[in-house]
Formats: sequence, structure tokens, C-alpha cells
Amino acid sequence: MNWPIFAIIISLLSFLVAAYFYRWVNALPTADGNLASIGKLVRDGAYTFLKTEYRVLLKFIGVVVFLILLFYPAPIWMGKPLDNITMAVAYVAGSVLSAIAGWIGISIATIANVKAATAARNGIQTSFMAGFRGGAVMGMAVVGTSLAGASILYLLTKHSEIVLAFSFGASSLALFAKAGGGIFTKTADIAADLTGKVELGIPEDDPRNPAVIADNVGDNVGDVAGMGADLFDSNIASIAAAIVLAAPLGQVDLIFAFGGFGLLSSIIGVLVARVGKKGNPGRALNNGTYITTAIFAVMTFAATLYFGFEMRLWLATFIGLMAGTVIGFTSELFTSDSGKPVALVAEASKSGPAFTIITGFSYGLLSSFPAILGIAVAALASYKVCEPLGAGYPLLGISLAAVGMLSIVGMIISNDAYGPIVDNARGLAEMGGLGDKVLEITDQLDAAGNTAKAITKGFSIGAAGLTVIALLAAYQEIVRSKTGEILSFSILDPLVFFGLMTGIAVPAVFSALLMMGVSRNAQRMVAEIHRQFDEIPGLREGQVGVLPDYTRCIDIATVGAIKELIPAGLMTIIATLAVGFIGGVSAIGGFLAGNITAGLLLALLMSNSGGMWDNAKKFIEAGNFGGKGSDAHKASVIGDTVGDPFKDTAGPSINTQITVVSLVASLSASLFMAFSIFG
Amino acid sequence: MNWPIFAIIISLLSFLVAAYFYRWVNALPTADGNLASIGKLVRDGAYTFLKTEYRVLLKFIGVVVFLILLFYPAPIWMGKPLDNITMAVAYVAGSVLSAIAGWIGISIATIANVKAATAARNGIQTSFMAGFRGGAVMGMAVVGTSLAGASILYLLTKHSEIVLAFSFGASSLALFAKAGGGIFTKTADIAADLTGKVELGIPEDDPRNPAVIADNVGDNVGDVAGMGADLFDSNIASIAAAIVLAAPLGQVDLIFAFGGFGLLSSIIGVLVARVGKKGNPGRALNNGTYITTAIFAVMTFAATLYFGFEMRLWLATFIGLMAGTVIGFTSELFTSDSGKPVALVAEASKSGPAFTIITGFSYGLLSSFPAILGIAVAALASYKVCEPLGAGYPLLGISLAAVGMLSIVGMIISNDAYGPIVDNARGLAEMGGLGDKVLEITDQLDAAGNTAKAITKGFSIGAAGLTVIALLAAYQEIVRSKTGEILSFSILDPLVFFGLMTGIAVPAVFSALLMMGVSRNAQRMVAEIHRQFDEIPGLREGQVGVLPDYTRCIDIATVGAIKELIPAGLMTIIATLAVGFIGGVSAIGGFLAGNITAGLLLALLMSNSGGMWDNAKKFIEAGNFGGKGSDAHKASVIGDTVGDPFKDTAGPSINTQITVVSLVASLSASLFMAFSIFG
Repeated sequence: MNWPIFAIIISLLSFLVAAYFYRWVNALPTADGNLASIGKLVRDGAYTFLKTEYRVLLKFIGVVVFLILLFYPAPIWMGKPLDNITMAVAYVAGSVLSAIAGWIGISIATIANVKAATAARNGIQTSFMAGFRGGAVMGMAVVGTSLAGASILYLLTKHSEIVLAFSFGASSLALFAKAGGGIFTKTADIAADLTGKVELGIPEDDPRNPAVIADNVGDNVGDVAGMGADLFDSNIASIAAAIVLAAPLGQVDLIFAFGGFGLLSSIIGVLVARVGKKGNPGRALNNGTYITTAIFAVMTFAATLYFGFEMRLWLATFIGLMAGTVIGFTSELFTSDSGKPVALVAEASKSGPAFTIITGFSYGLLSSFPAILGIAVAALASYKVCEPLGAGYPLLGISLAAVGMLSIVGMIISNDAYGPIVDNARGLAEMGGLGDKVLEITDQLDAAGNTAKAITKGFSIGAAGLTVIALLAAYQEIVRSKTGEILSFSILDPLVFFGLMTGIAVPAVFSALLMMGVSRNAQRMVAEIHRQFDEIPGLREGQVGVLPDYTRCIDIATVGAIKELIPAGLMTIIATLAVGFIGGVSAIGGFLAGNITAGLLLALLMSNSGGMWDNAKKFIEAGNFGGKGSDAHKASVIGDTVGDPFKDTAGPSINTQITVVSLVASLSASLFMAFSIFG
Repeated sequence: MNWPIFAIIISLLSFLVAAYFYRWVNALPTADGNLASIGKLVRDGAYTFLKTEYRVLLKFIGVVVFLILLFYPAPIWMGKPLDNITMAVAYVAGSVLSAIAGWIGISIATIANVKAATAARNGIQTSFMAGFRGGAVMGMAVVGTSLAGASILYLLTKHSEIVLAFSFGASSLALFAKAGGGIFTKTADIAADLTGKVELGIPEDDPRNPAVIADNVGDNVGDVAGMGADLFDSNIASIAAAIVLAAPLGQVDLIFAFGGFGLLSSIIGVLVARVGKKGNPGRALNNGTYITTAIFAVMTFAATLYFGFEMRLWLATFIGLMAGTVIGFTSELFTSDSGKPVALVAEASKSGPAFTIITGFSYGLLSSFPAILGIAVAALASYKVCEPLGAGYPLLGISLAAVGMLSIVGMIISNDAYGPIVDNARGLAEMGGLGDKVLEITDQLDAAGNTAKAITKGFSIGAAGLTVIALLAAYQEIVRSKTGEILSFSILDPLVFFGLMTGIAVPAVFSALLMMGVSRNAQRMVAEIHRQFDEIPGLREGQVGVLPDYTRCIDIATVGAIKELIPAGLMTIIATLAVGFIGGVSAIGGFLAGNITAGLLLALLMSNSGGMWDNAKKFIEAGNFGGKGSDAHKASVIGDTVGDPFKDTAGPSINTQITVVSLVASLSASLFMAFSIFG
């Protein structure tokens, strides 16, 4: 069996499924009236953002390609120039494929939102399917392109570091897509809420609000394209790290086999997912995840027996899969609107917004514990399970746990992209005047999306954690393969300690820069909205035919997002290079460890407390503690606004930041060995 | 020269200075009217809390003594029983001496507050001196008892682990004093503000408010006794770690010499500190710190030359001293009310409380960077400086950097205890009706206290960071001395990694429990205040002769503080033991590293963002962005309330938590070696 070829075949299959879903969704009817034209505004806005983002990215890629040609994997005057060229090509392939997957995702998401809104007139079933299959196009495209890309590159070069460069290309894109999209979406969301709901008292998604289209665009660019790029990146990074560690042991086939089976399970999962006439969409999404998980476990177990893979390696993969499920489950427990923490945050709001914040923040800190413990146990268990296989295997075991956790990523992305599509459908139904019955159904679909999102976030943070340990191990392996020296990364080595300390500061500074970016950009957009209400006659009163200038708000969000993102991105890369050139390879080991630990803590804290504040507000709006308009509600709205950049900008961008840092470090290993002050 | 004897003599000198200051302050006049009786209420309240705290502590100590007798340093049936008895005695001595120092501190602070209020009638000079010399009694008592205790114990036993047990005794007390006092003070502060300022619109320190005495008691038990115990603990821990590392190298004398010179410098510093008639009290405090720093540097340099100590060891100490100054300075930069971050947080408040929170939180994250970098550089530099001296010296260098940073701790505590004394003086002047001129002067003194406090916090967090690295090194040395094995604590060792991950979760869970404790307890006290306003006729209207039931509020704060603190304290100790018994000594190494890194990050974030929110409110109250009563002001009050448990409960308690964990780990090394599942 040629397993890379197998992975490529499964990838092609996933493209067929994506194409089928694309046509299926596209063939659904669109309601008459202005729905189509509003949908087009959202679609054009999303494309505008993507184009601007990709244009800036192109410059960034240009600079990186230049540096790769000169310095990577080794300075061109010291190594083989062909290696540098291959690596540059792999890097470009990673970013371009991820960009294409993002483009496809936005393309279908901005069709599926209109279709889901239209279908909701006839009940929940088709509307759910429009949202889910729209999301699944993204899921299939992302996993298919990433797996096919890695397999082809490996087949052609047989060089594991090349796959790392491919992964770094995907990471570069993810940094722009996730952090930039996160700033965009929260800029628009906060500005729309503050001016619309708070100042004017008009409902969410009211077409008079100049930011309303930008807000809907934000769902797409932040949650569809951004999350897709993030998981593209994590998925390929976990595979790349595993390949680096598996290569010296002759176990690369297993990685492609399991990667292929993971995608195959997701294909089956998305094909069978559906909801009954009176069905529960949340349960349908979760069932899809469980079915995919079970299929993957069974298929890989059978393949391990039949093809004679190491059973212990399968077990390590399985441990990762289970840990992912547990982490996702506990995130849901903390952020679910039927859980105790959310109810307590809502109750604290009765005493004022300060208590909303303190309580949500405290539970956010607490919520980090089970996830961190889950990662710790998964790493320890997968290591110990593979220890009897001999040197090199234990660390491969950890990397397989990461692969296992991400094996069902096709399903995860499908569930995740479903959320913004049905959220958009709700907005379009409101703006297009489709009536209260439709709003009720889209609200129900939207709530299911929120729960799925909490699980996905837990999953992706956990996966990033394990992936980065695998990357750290891969880093050690690269240094070993080049120098024969096995780095021990001892904490009491002052260079390792120096790296550890600087490593913990990076995610803190990174998330601070992103959040301040959102805050500044939202203030700019609020000023623009005030201007429009002051200068456009009849807008405030809702005079028929008077429309705000939606594009100005989209432009502000776009330009601001890119502008605010660049310092954060550059800081991350420059800090990594600075630590490497000062402290050498040992310092980088500590730096990566500090980066993972602090990054996980902050990511979990911010994602989960943000989710709790959001759902505490919804819990109060559902009629608890005084309901809408009460003091508790006002307090919870403040909590929700604080949570917006926590949970949708900074929190989930930290994943990407961690991966970028690890890949820059791994690829620069040779440089750090050759040139560093203390190392 | 017998250096432990030298240290004891300097300690005795510090007691003489403390006694002199005590008498000096006590001899100042007290204003007529009800000032004395209000002062007595505060004093009695503080004693009530201390007695309750010490009673609970006694039980805790009893349990620990029992465990020490059975298991430490080695199980009694495996080692020498006399060692266990000596260790138990050292443990008790540490907690009792720290308790006595705390008692003395409260005793003088609750006299000096009345005297400072009275003296403010005649201008700033004597009032400042009353506050400062009152604080200096605490400073001298804390450093004198801790240094004398360590010196006597070492002279008697010549056993470095015994000094660790002494330090653990001090830590036990610090955990209760700092975290318990922190919950007490913020419970009262938040409840008083919410009911008084927000609901009723009565000024701060209005005697009608039932929580007003508890609020003033809180300043004493949280900021005087709590901070004193915390720095007692850090100081002795740094000395203990240094002794463990210095003993095998025959360099113990140096530790006692430098400890003695540090105290001597502080004695000179507090004796010369004073303020001119129109002088600036903030500058007077800072000048005292700079003078002490300079004297210490010069004296130790001279002693190194004269007595032939290693110059490189002096340099390591000096590096720590400088790093402490830099860290203190940058904390001040971020939290000073004349700095840019505070102005930006205040400006963001114009857009509503959510922006206050987001901006303050972001700058809090940013502020962690310079301090963390300072610690990283100090550790690296002090290690490298001592590397040429041979094996063992580099880690001793790091521990000396911690000793250097804490050398001027006598001066630091004096400055720090000054703050709550003059804060109290302001409250007493308001309640005692001493008039606006007095309030103006006490406000001025209070503002200087806030600045000094920011510097102190930066200092104590930095010192805890370095101390714990030193403790980790001490831990390695203890294991080496018992087994000959040098633990490398490699990050890729799965047990170390497991420890690292669980270690980062502990400060997160610890601070979450404390903050939730404050939130719950404040809600209880708010309910009690409402009850009193409803049930005591004439109270709300301020009828002459009608007084609230102050003691009930003090009781609620006391009982609640102890109750809420216990789970957090036990969790910390149990987590350490659990990790040790599961993963053994390697896991504990990772655990300590995770604990320091996450602890530093959270402590800096919470202390600094809390300080920024506090000062942003003051900045607006000074007339900026609309001044008192504006929307920006309301938003900043919410920020300040969120910041209260951040900066005065959770943030500074993390120091203590880190030290407790390190000491439990170090003392349990033998146990973990003998009994652990994976280790």
C-alpha cells in the first residue's frame, strides 16, 4: 500500500463531496425581495476584505520567500541552493492552498447564508442542511488541500523539513486570516452593538445601522475564513511534526494512513449528518462529531491490525482523540448556557457589571484547569505507551496524539463554519423582512452553532497545545539530525530559562496588541456611524429608501484590521528570531515551552470567559434575573462586549501565534546553531 | 569575622530602631473629639481579625507539625527522629516570629494612623514622619526577626534544610495573612463603595456607612500585616535557598554578611528619611529607597574587597539589586497617574466600561513584558557572571541575585506600610471631622503612598520570581546531596512536561478561588449593610448619635475571609503533593517552573491592570474627561471595582502561593524520591 497516494485519493474524494455540496446548496431557491441584494452586499464585503488581506499577504510572502531563498534550510552559500528553492516553493504552496481553501469557504458561506434564510420559511430541515453542507464545503476543502499538499510534497521530495515549510506557509496565512479576521469581526460587532442596541435602541441586524453589513461580513471573514485557516494550519503542523519524528523510524506511512482515514471518517460524518423535522440541530452536530470519532477509531484500529502497524502507535493516536473529546466537552460545560458557571455569571450581574467581569474572569481561569490537565495527561500517556518501542518512539507518540486529536478536523471545521452561516442567515432574514417564524427557526439554528463553536474552540486549543509539544520534539530531532547533539532543554540551564521567561511574555503582548487594535478600530467605526446618522437625512428615522453607506464601515474594518494586525504579527516573528540569535537553540527550546504554557492559559481563559459572558447575556435575555432591559441585563451586555475581543480575536489567535513561533523556530534551527551570541 | 553573629547584632540594632520609632510615634499628640474612639474601633477590629486568623492558623500549624514529626526531612522510621523534631521547631519558629512581626506592625499602624491625622493639622512634615516611622517599625521588625531567626537556627544546627523549614513556617503564615487579609480588605472596600458611593451618594469614609470601619481595618490587615508577612516570607526564602546552594561551596558566610549589610542599609535609610516643610512626600519615599540601594551597593562592595569575598558573587548580588530597581520603575511607569497608559485607560472610559476593562487588561498584559524580561536577564547575567567560578557557583549566582533584590526589603516594607497608615489617617480625619485642610494634606500623603505601593509590588513580584528559581536550584541540590543524581529537568521529559502543565494551572485556579471569595463575601456584606440601613432608624438620614453596627461588618469580613481562603490554600498544597507523588522529583521540577512562569504572568497582569484602573479613576476625578459624575467616571469606577480583587487580593497573593509551593516541594524531596508512581 502506498499511503501518501492513499491520502491523495481520499483528498480527491473530499473535493468531490465538496463540489457536490456546493452544487446542492447553490441549487436551493432564494427568496424574492431584497434578500439577494443584501446577500450580495455581504458577499462583496467579504471579498473586499479577502482581497485586501491577500494583497498585504502577498508582500509578506514575498519578503519571506526572499529570506528562505537566502537562508533556509541553510544559508545559500553554505548548503545546496536547490534545497532553498524547494523550500520556497513549499512555503508558497502552503500559503496559496490555504488561501484558496479560504476563498472557497467564503464563496459558499455567502451563498449558503441566503439559502438557509430562504429555506427557513419551510421549517428547520432544509435550512439546517444549507448551513451544515455550506460549512462542510469549507471543511472538505481545507482538509483535502492540506492533506493532498503535504502528501504530494513528501512524495516528490521525501524531505520532512519541506513539509514544515509548507506548514509555515499555511501559518503565515492563518496569522493574517485569524487575527485580521478577528479584529475585523469584533470591530464591526462592537461598533454595531454600541451604536445600534445601546445608543439608539434599535434591534440587532436593523438595516438602518451602517455597521450591520460589516457585522455580517465579519462573521464570514473571522469565523469561516479565519477559523478555517487556523485549523488548516494546526492540522498540517501536526502532520509535519509527526513526519519529522517518524522519518528516522521509518514510520511515515502511518501518518499518511491515519491522515487519510481521518479525512475519510469526516467525509462519512458529513454525508450522514441530518436533522429530523422537529429535530434538535445541536444534537445533530454533536452526533456527527461522535460518529466521525467512532468511525475513525474503528477504521484505524482495523488498519493497524490488517496492515501490521504498531498497535502502541495506534493507541497514542487514540489517546489524543479521546483527550480532544474531553477538552471539547469541558469547554462546553463551562460555556454552555444551561450550565452552572454561566448561570452564576448571570446572577452576579445583579450586583453590577464589576461582578459580571470578576465572576466570568474567575471561571475563565478555573476552566483552564481541565483542558490543561487533559493535554498534560495525553502527552504523558502517549509517551509512556510508546516507550517500550525504543528511542524516538515516545516523542513520536506525543505527535501522534496531536494527529489523533486533529484527525476529525474535517468534521470540526464543518460544524464550526455552520455557525457563522446560520448567524448570517438570521441577520439576512431580519434585514430582508422574512418574518418572525423564520427568525425563530434561524435563532434555533444559531444557538446550536454557538454550542458547536465552544467545543471546536476547546478542540483547536488542545490540538495546538499537543502540536507544539510535537513541534518542540521535532525541533530537537532536527538539531539532532544536523549535529548529532541531543538537546535536553533543562529548565535550570540559564539559556533555557531565559527562553522560557521571554516565551511566556509573547502571547501576553500578542493578545494585548490585538485587543487594543479592536478597541481602537471600534472607536473609529463608532465615529463613522455617528457621522452617517448626523449627515444622512432620514436615516435615523428609518425613512423608506434611505440607506446608510455600508461600504465605508466595511472599509474601516478592513483597513483597520490589517493595520492593527501587522505589529502583533511582526513582534511574534522578531521575538523568536531575537531569542534564537541571542540564546541559540537551547533558549529556543525554553522559549517554545514558555510560549505553549502561557499561550494555552491565556487562550483558554479568554475563549472561555468570553463565551461565558456571551451566554450569560443570552441567559438573562431568556427572561432570567429580570430579563431584557433590567440592570442585570445591562451589566451582562458590558460583560459580553469585554468578551468579544477575548473570545473571537485574541483567544483563538493565540493558537496561530504559537504555531507560527514553533515553525519559525524549527526552520531556523540551522541558523541559530551557526549564529548566536550565547548559544 | 563570624557573619551569622554579625547578622544577629544588626538585627538587634534594628529592634532598637523599631523601639525608638514606636515610642517616637506614640508620644505624638492625639486630637480631641471622637478621633481616639474611632481609632480604637479600627484597632480593635484589626486585632479581632488577627486573633481569628491566628486561631485558625494554630490548627493548621498543628497539623503541619504533626506531619513534619512523622515525615520530614525523612520518615521518622527511616531517618533520625531528632532531625524531625528540630525541623518542627524551626517551622514553628518561622510562623511564630512572622506572626509576632505582624502583630507589632498592626499595633503601631493603628496608633500611627491617629497620630498622622492629628499631626496633619500643623502641616505635612510631622504627619509624614508619623506615617513613615510607623511603617518603619514594621519594616525593622520583619527584617530583624527573619534575619535573626535564620542566623540563630543556622548557628545552632549548621543544617541548611532547617532554614527551609523556618521559611516554610513563615510561608504558612504569609498564605493566611496575605490571601486572608486581601479578601478581608477588598470585601470591605467593595461593599463600602457600592453601598456608600454608588447607591447612597455619600462620600468615602462617611461614618454612616456600616462598612467604613471594616474598610479601614482592611487597610491594616491586608496592606500592613499581609504585605509584611509576604515580604518576611520572600526574604527568608531567598536567604534559605541561597544557604542551601552556598553550603556545599563553603560560602554561607557571604549570605549572612550581605543579609546583615542589607538590613544595616535599610536602618540608615529609614533614619535619614524626612520631608521638607513644602516637600514632596513621594520624592522623600523614593529618595529613601535610592539612598538605601546605594549604601548597600557600596558597603557590600567594600566588604567584598576587605574580607576577600568573591567579587563575582558580589556582582551577581548587584545585578539582582539593579533588576529590582528596574522592575519597580517600570511598574510605576505603567500604573502612575501621570503616565500614558493610565491616561489612555481613562480616555477609553469615555466609550463605556467595556473599553475601560479591555484597555486596562491589555496594558496589564503588556506591562508583564519588561518585568519578565528583567527577571530573565537578571537570572542569565548572574549565572554567566559566576560561571567561571566553577560548578555550583552559577546557580548560587542566581540565588544571590534574589538576595540582592531583597536586600533593601527593610526599606521597601517601611515605604509600603506607610501607605495604609496615611490612607487610614485620611479616613480618620474625615470621620473625626478634622476639616478640609487636614484632608488635603492626608490626600497628598496618600497619593505618595500609592506610587510607593506600585514600586513595592513590582519589587516583591520580581523577587519572588528570582527566589523561586533559586528554590528550584536548591531543590536540585537537595536531591543531589541525597542521591548524587543531578536532575536535569528536561522539558521533553514527559514527567517534567506533565509537571509544567499542571504547574501553570495552579496560580490560575488559586487566583480564581480568591477572587470568587471576594465577590461572594462582598455580596454578603452588601446585604448586611442594606439590612442596617433598613432596620436602624435615623441612620440613613445621619441623625446625630445614631451609629451603625460596625462590628457586624468586621465579623462578616473576618469570617468570610478565612472561610474563602482555606480551599485556595489547601488546593495549592494538595496539588503540589499530588504531582510529586504521581510524577516524582522530575515532575516537581516542571511543576515549579510552570508555577513561576504562569504565576509571574498573572501576578503582574493583575497587579498592574488593577493599579491602572484605580489611577484612571483618580485621573478622571482630578477633572479629566468630564471629571466626577461624568459617564467616563462611572465607567472608571467599574474598572476600579474589577481591579480591587485583582491588585489587592489575587495578584499579590500569587507571590506567596509560589513560595509555599516551592517550599513544600523542596521539603518533600525525600518523600517524592521514596514514594511516587511514575518518578
